[in-house]
Amino acid sequence: MSDHQEPSKTLWHGRYQSEADQSLRKLNDSLPFDQRLFREDIVCSVGYAKALAAGGVISESEAQALENGLHSILNEFYWGQFKFEAGDEDIHTAIERRLGETVGPVSGKLHTGRSRNDQVATDTRSWLGHRIPEVNGSIYKVQQALFEQAKQHVETLMPGYTHLRAAQPITAAHWLMSTFWMLTRDVRRFEACRASTLISPLGSGALAGTPYPIDRLALAKSMFFHGITENSLDAVSDRDFIVEFLSAASLMMVHLSRFAEDVILYSSPQFGFIKLDERFTTGSSLMPQKQNPDVLELTRGKAGRIAGHLAGLLNTLKGLPSTYNKDLQEDKEPLFDAVDTLQTLLPALTGLIETMSFDPVRMQASLDEGMLATDVADYLVAKGIPFREAHGLVGQAVRRSLDTNTPLSKLALEDYKAISPIFDNDVYAVFDFGASVAKREASGGTAPDAVREQIKQAEEWLTRHSTSV
Amino acid sequence: MSDHQEPSKTLWHGRYQSEADQSLRKLNDSLPFDQRLFREDIVCSVGYAKALAAGGVISESEAQALENGLHSILNEFYWGQFKFEAGDEDIHTAIERRLGETVGPVSGKLHTGRSRNDQVATDTRSWLGHRIPEVNGSIYKVQQALFEQAKQHVETLMPGYTHLRAAQPITAAHWLMSTFWMLTRDVRRFEACRASTLISPLGSGALAGTPYPIDRLALAKSMFFHGITENSLDAVSDRDFIVEFLSAASLMMVHLSRFAEDVILYSSPQFGFIKLDERFTTGSSLMPQKQNPDVLELTRGKAGRIAGHLAGLLNTLKGLPSTYNKDLQEDKEPLFDAVDTLQTLLPALTGLIETMSFDPVRMQASLDEGMLATDVADYLVAKGIPFREAHGLVGQAVRRSLDTNTPLSKLALEDYKAISPIFDNDVYAVFDFGASVAKREASGGTAPDAVREQIKQAEEWLTRHSTSV
Amino acid sequence: MSDHQEPSKTLWHGRYQSEADQSLRKLNDSLPFDQRLFREDIVCSVGYAKALAAGGVISESEAQALENGLHSILNEFYWGQFKFEAGDEDIHTAIERRLGETVGPVSGKLHTGRSRNDQVATDTRSWLGHRIPEVNGSIYKVQQALFEQAKQHVETLMPGYTHLRAAQPITAAHWLMSTFWMLTRDVRRFEACRASTLISPLGSGALAGTPYPIDRLALAKSMFFHGITENSLDAVSDRDFIVEFLSAASLMMVHLSRFAEDVILYSSPQFGFIKLDERFTTGSSLMPQKQNPDVLELTRGKAGRIAGHLAGLLNTLKGLPSTYNKDLQEDKEPLFDAVDTLQTLLPALTGLIETMSFDPVRMQASLDEGMLATDVADYLVAKGIPFREAHGLVGQAVRRSLDTNTPLSKLALEDYKAISPIFDNDVYAVFDFGASVAKREASGGTAPDAVREQIKQAEEWLTRHSTSV
Amino acid sequence: MSDHQEPSKTLWHGRYQSEADQSLRKLNDSLPFDQRLFREDIVCSVGYAKALAAGGVISESEAQALENGLHSILNEFYWGQFKFEAGDEDIHTAIERRLGETVGPVSGKLHTGRSRNDQVATDTRSWLGHRIPEVNGSIYKVQQALFEQAKQHVETLMPGYTHLRAAQPITAAHWLMSTFWMLTRDVRRFEACRASTLISPLGSGALAGTPYPIDRLALAKSMFFHGITENSLDAVSDRDFIVEFLSAASLMMVHLSRFAEDVILYSSPQFGFIKLDERFTTGSSLMPQKQNPDVLELTRGKAGRIAGHLAGLLNTLKGLPSTYNKDLQEDKEPLFDAVDTLQTLLPALTGLIETMSFDPVRMQASLDEGMLATDVADYLVAKGIPFREAHGLVGQAVRRSLDTNTPLSKLALEDYKAISPIFDNDVYAVFDFGASVAKREASGGTAPDAVREQIKQAEEWLTRHSTSV
Repeated sequence: MSDHQEPSKTLWHGRYQSEADQSLRKLNDSLPFDQRLFREDIVCSVGYAKALAAGGVISESEAQALENGLHSILNEFYWGQFKFEAGDEDIHTAIERRLGETVGPVSGKLHTGRSRNDQVATDTRSWLGHRIPEVNGSIYKVQQALFEQAKQHVETLMPGYTHLRAAQPITAAHWLMSTFWMLTRDVRRFEACRASTLISPLGSGALAGTPYPIDRLALAKSMFFHGITENSLDAVSDRDFIVEFLSAASLMMVHLSRFAEDVILYSSPQFGFIKLDERFTTGSSLMPQKQNPDVLELTRGKAGRIAGHLAGLLNTLKGLPSTYNKDLQEDKEPLFDAVDTLQTLLPALTGLIETMSFDPVRMQASLDEGMLATDVADYLVAKGIPFREAHGLVGQAVRRSLDTNTPLSKLALEDYKAISPIFDNDVYAVFDFGASVAKREASGGTAPDAVREQIKQAEEWLTRHSTSV
Repeated sequence: MSDHQEPSKTLWHGRYQSEADQSLRKLNDSLPFDQRLFREDIVCSVGYAKALAAGGVISESEAQALENGLHSILNEFYWGQFKFEAGDEDIHTAIERRLGETVGPVSGKLHTGRSRNDQVATDTRSWLGHRIPEVNGSIYKVQQALFEQAKQHVETLMPGYTHLRAAQPITAAHWLMSTFWMLTRDVRRFEACRASTLISPLGSGALAGTPYPIDRLALAKSMFFHGITENSLDAVSDRDFIVEFLSAASLMMVHLSRFAEDVILYSSPQFGFIKLDERFTTGSSLMPQKQNPDVLELTRGKAGRIAGHLAGLLNTLKGLPSTYNKDLQEDKEPLFDAVDTLQTLLPALTGLIETMSFDPVRMQASLDEGMLATDVADYLVAKGIPFREAHGLVGQAVRRSLDTNTPLSKLALEDYKAISPIFDNDVYAVFDFGASVAKREASGGTAPDAVREQIKQAEEWLTRHSTSV
Repeated sequence: MSDHQEPSKTLWHGRYQSEADQSLRKLNDSLPFDQRLFREDIVCSVGYAKALAAGGVISESEAQALENGLHSILNEFYWGQFKFEAGDEDIHTAIERRLGETVGPVSGKLHTGRSRNDQVATDTRSWLGHRIPEVNGSIYKVQQALFEQAKQHVETLMPGYTHLRAAQPITAAHWLMSTFWMLTRDVRRFEACRASTLISPLGSGALAGTPYPIDRLALAKSMFFHGITENSLDAVSDRDFIVEFLSAASLMMVHLSRFAEDVILYSSPQFGFIKLDERFTTGSSLMPQKQNPDVLELTRGKAGRIAGHLAGLLNTLKGLPSTYNKDLQEDKEPLFDAVDTLQTLLPALTGLIETMSFDPVRMQASLDEGMLATDVADYLVAKGIPFREAHGLVGQAVRRSLDTNTPLSKLALEDYKAISPIFDNDVYAVFDFGASVAKREASGGTAPDAVREQIKQAEEWLTRHSTSV
Repeated sequence: MSDHQEPSKTLWHGRYQSEADQSLRKLNDSLPFDQRLFREDIVCSVGYAKALAAGGVISESEAQALENGLHSILNEFYWGQFKFEAGDEDIHTAIERRLGETVGPVSGKLHTGRSRNDQVATDTRSWLGHRIPEVNGSIYKVQQALFEQAKQHVETLMPGYTHLRAAQPITAAHWLMSTFWMLTRDVRRFEACRASTLISPLGSGALAGTPYPIDRLALAKSMFFHGITENSLDAVSDRDFIVEFLSAASLMMVHLSRFAEDVILYSSPQFGFIKLDERFTTGSSLMPQKQNPDVLELTRGKAGRIAGHLAGLLNTLKGLPSTYNKDLQEDKEPLFDAVDTLQTLLPALTGLIETMSFDPVRMQASLDEGMLATDVADYLVAKGIPFREAHGLVGQAVRRSLDTNTPLSKLALEDYKAISPIFDNDVYAVFDFGASVAKREASGGTAPDAVREQIKQAEEWLTRHSTSV
């Protein structure tokens, strides 16, 4: 903003005798953050000019003049030539001011029947409606990276954990795909949010609707919206689409934070399952040996940031009187920051996943026989013991194994028989991690065959979605 | 829970030498809040028993014995005869314990291949899947109440506000319908959440899938689910459906809090537009004259409660390692409380709306001519003045009106002409609130004709949805 | 950041073979937001250089060279001449890089025994320690404005509300002072936060403490801290001071949001108690007559913003392993934004309060006799009726007053006597708003004398605090 | 609540013609959760009766009758004989109703000049004021357990981590004490909260103060409060003390969640530093071998629960008009739940810490030489190399160590010399973990001597605080 200028008059100055106080201007002006809406503001204004002409409110030539002026301003933005002035409260008034300088008094006709209330809501919806496919595009890349890694590790065994305690053997592909499917749900939620977003409020005026013969649906279509709002009072203050976006983003960040937690653990020396590529780690200014998983830690940490934006906006919206209140200006910064955060994070995460490598030997070596205790119980079940009883018997075997520091597969048969005579020599065949995994072949299980089916479904999903971008 | 008993053994006691510490039990046991899942736990267990039989894991007669036992336990719950024991950690183990007492050792077969991890997730999804239509049913009643009031007030004028400052005249029906449409979006979100909820994780085991030949899709259908989860690791810890529910509920509470704020204001003596029925207000223990809008204040206040549950759960989920971790036990209390809160609040709100009455005389009297300033600007626009210039000219008229304490309609024509010669005698025709409203007849506007169209759409929406319950 | 440069090497590059990926750098670098710590980074580095020299780790002349270099860099910042380079990850490395260019290899000695972990924590604490008195200074101005207004309105009567329903008459000064006292608690919390903040972690190294003979307490004092942390592992990741700040700020914003809500209402035409100065309101781009209380709405709306930062940071911190994790980098943006928000908001609010004016006539006219119902009950109490019974009797009088549309003071004595024979002619003396207010003279009450006492205490508080700045 | 009764009249029924609707009662009544305030309600009522007598509002004998009645009701609660009735909205009205039954009409004098607004606030403050020392008492036990463990492990070496990557060797005692000090800050915050809490609002009436000659300060002292509120409007809706409590509790839960995360990791087989006692772990219903750290996971998970309560209450409070609004009834459930959560969690955590055991052999074995890289750099610094240059040189050594798969201590001297001729034979003396730790003896460092000093300070702190309980 230029410093050496008289503060120019605001749009709404007519009835006022005094200038706004500088402290109010500093608090109130949204230009610093809403200037990124310039494209949408211009595109929607072009649509509105045409709608005014179609309704006979202005002439075709006036509409053409407005459109030409708006296009030339758009070019100024693209070429970095647009200059903001001290009186520009927000992007909308900046463009209206510049339009006046560009096309003269006819510019004053563009605001006919339009209020900043419906204009801001329209611009913001248009902006978000265009960002969501971009965000989904970034998610597809994370999914693609997971998917490509999974294809390489359908048969790679690793420990599966619950409560971060070794539970049962699984395959690495199965683990990778678990995050893939979480992200499909996130994509679906963003798509639903997009449908909520691309509903046009334009033609709602400040609150009561427009007295001019505007075909709102045609106008909406011309701005690439899918439909129109049903009630003008609701329309000017409906921020559901932003809450929906922040909700969907918060939940996706939960998913990514959990994946990050896993990879931080699995790439630590204690686990040693995964090696991160140097390009996606950082060092320490003090300790020369360090290689830190900053991308993953920031993924985890930024889950809080986005959830905070959601909590904040819900608080801001709570208890407002109906229609537009200035409190709603607090909607944009969290939304913009959430989109920026995702678009910074997802590419780094994609790169990290693409370049990470597994250590199958270490993973296999981390399997211990306790993880087959359930299989031993299933062995007893196959011999007719009810599962609950079998669970208790195997518990005793585990206890003996711990007390004698002997692996389950090395417990003597008489030890087993002392627990239950049902045990027989064939119990030792249970201690085969690969066989354990292969048995879990029901849909969604960790058996390689089941995982191959998962990957096939995932590929179909990905093809279906990524081509629709 | 009976006090005079030995703490009975838990399900998982096999390998343990010592009893769990009482402080752990007190912290850990979820029975106090999860016992409300008894019906779903039994229904899903019946389904599981049948699936085990269909897969040949148990015999048909065993399945029948299990089903009979489970039904008899269900009856015990219905008749208030079920007794919890000290060893019951949660509803699942309580029912499993009782099943053993009821049908003997065969009960031990029910847990074959099933873990509490997939069982709890299944039960909770089943429970919520049944609650959502009930919640939506309660919302329809609020909508119906709004709609019935709106039909009575299509032509009732009232001030419309932005920034809680008189803006333009609107109709009461338009105001009532603005909340109606917000609620349609809430219903849609709850429906989407239901679709996310009724996906069965059963057959995922503790984390790795089941080694038994369970037809998971058939099992899902038998429990009234719509589909199955794709990945067992994801399935046992996917709480997206709860976050979705809390997100949708938080946003609905924002809508209701805003409606509540409006009605608190409009029913205050200062506004006087609405009179609340005594049955939906309360008095003061100190001040004999008081009549307080508690229902509305609690509506507003409980918006915080639900948003808190959402913020809390997102925090709990953040950064957990994959699959089941005990932290997830924190999912149920906020979910249950959110459903209970809505189901307590919505009926009270419905009653309040049904019984509130408008004071059209007071509403009409609250209109002041400043609210027609935009119409005066539109009058100038009709004479060819660009809107922005017209806005400035009317601003001067408003200024003069304030300075001379003269309503706009009483300003002399020379005063108007001093501002602009375009003003003429016909300007005085602008000062007609009804005419102002009637002009806003574009779709979604406040004109009675547009509102009648809204009400027609709303009726169709309501018929479509409420009959699908 | 210059675009046309080779990305220069990071500080920690020694063991690395590949450059960090650009996506990681974009995600990771904190320079865009932490550059505002330049002053604190330099001041604390000067302190550290001296401590190294005092411990004999470097020579006095080396310390002097470092100090001179750091001062010259500080000047570069002040004169806007400091240039960031592509390799600068954060403000700390930028300054270290520039120090090398300025003083040569000796610059490499400054990091002896120091890690970015303790350095960042020290700088941030130093920054906040200096901001808190500034924030408190801004609060004092709001308090001063409230106090000055209160002094003018000790005898100005207005309706007091509970549940936004007329309750009892109060004085305007009493209402103004209610916010004053809330702010005293906020100031106290910020002061407690400052005490938590100015505890120096420097000398904790990356996590394990320093192997160099640094006198940590002397170092702390030289940087204007009050004490030192007790445990190095805790010290490098203790962000309590930021959570404390955000908690205190969130609660203050609650207070301000409530004051804003009151003033929005009281300055609306329906209430008409307060007139806002034009300089602190804004107009509408569509409706020429509007004068909107944007400052107050943003005050209310920004309460959500700050509470969101708090919720977000608590989420980010939850469940982190001990000592430094990169997630902690998410601490600075919410802190900086919270301080900026307060420092933008408080001056605008101060101006608004200073320039608002009351309409005592309108306020007095808004009192209605129902607000004296409690006084009528007290009248009966004075005649020996237990209060609870008196409350019921007056309730009947209120009922009669409503049914007959007669003010309480105009109900006939026989009407009163029909309710209770205790009523007598002297009941009519109760209907005196001024007398009602004057009776509430116990400490903290609304009686002018009690309020004068309040104002006196407030003045003492303000003198005590504002002179300590 | 008895079912077979006419809903009895509420306290405020005088002016009402109709009964409250059942849906309102269900929403509105707070008895289900506020009945736990019975003791405080009675104690504060006794105080109030005496204050009324001291002010001459009632006679001494009336006060005595009230006191006797209240004490007999208190006994009914203690003996489980108190019966709630259908008309009891909350604990206050239940006790007032019962007092009437017990002492007759004089009971109606107790409410003289008192409103539920000041009464509820007083009771809640009194309740919390008594709970905080109990909570702190539970914290001291956790601290004591940490402290006792620390005393055993002053010389026990273990890896210290940053970014969950091995950083430098530390001692186990140092790690244990890091949580100790966090808890000292939590105790301090709870103490500050207690000071905010024990400020009496009694005598504020509904909002405007009391017209009766009550000595508010004497009354406060008699109820064990420390002071009185300054402004009655503020007093009846000041919930700062609850927000402070939830803020302090949220932050403590962050600390405990971080400790829990560490112990979950350290007690996992991958780390193997800690063994949890069986009594504080749980098993699996499916997997016989499991031993899950549920106490720690719930500690981590409940951090979200408490942070959610804080976010929720801030949302509820935001934007309320001044004085009492019914929204404030939403304050109690989160407060009660937070206290209950802490008092359930802390004892379990204490037991877990007391009974956990370390595996010093495994901890020592987990140290690797990379963790001494900083010490190698310090070795070079001691020879005059600036630290930053030394860091780079050691980075090269680390690189060589990785490339040749040779530990740093086994790299040939010529390899070191190839990096820098400064290296000499004495470099091999650096590879001594104990020596590395011992060097970090500055205050707050991990050296055993420094840790002994820490423990001494801790003991003093603990003695000072725990004896003040």
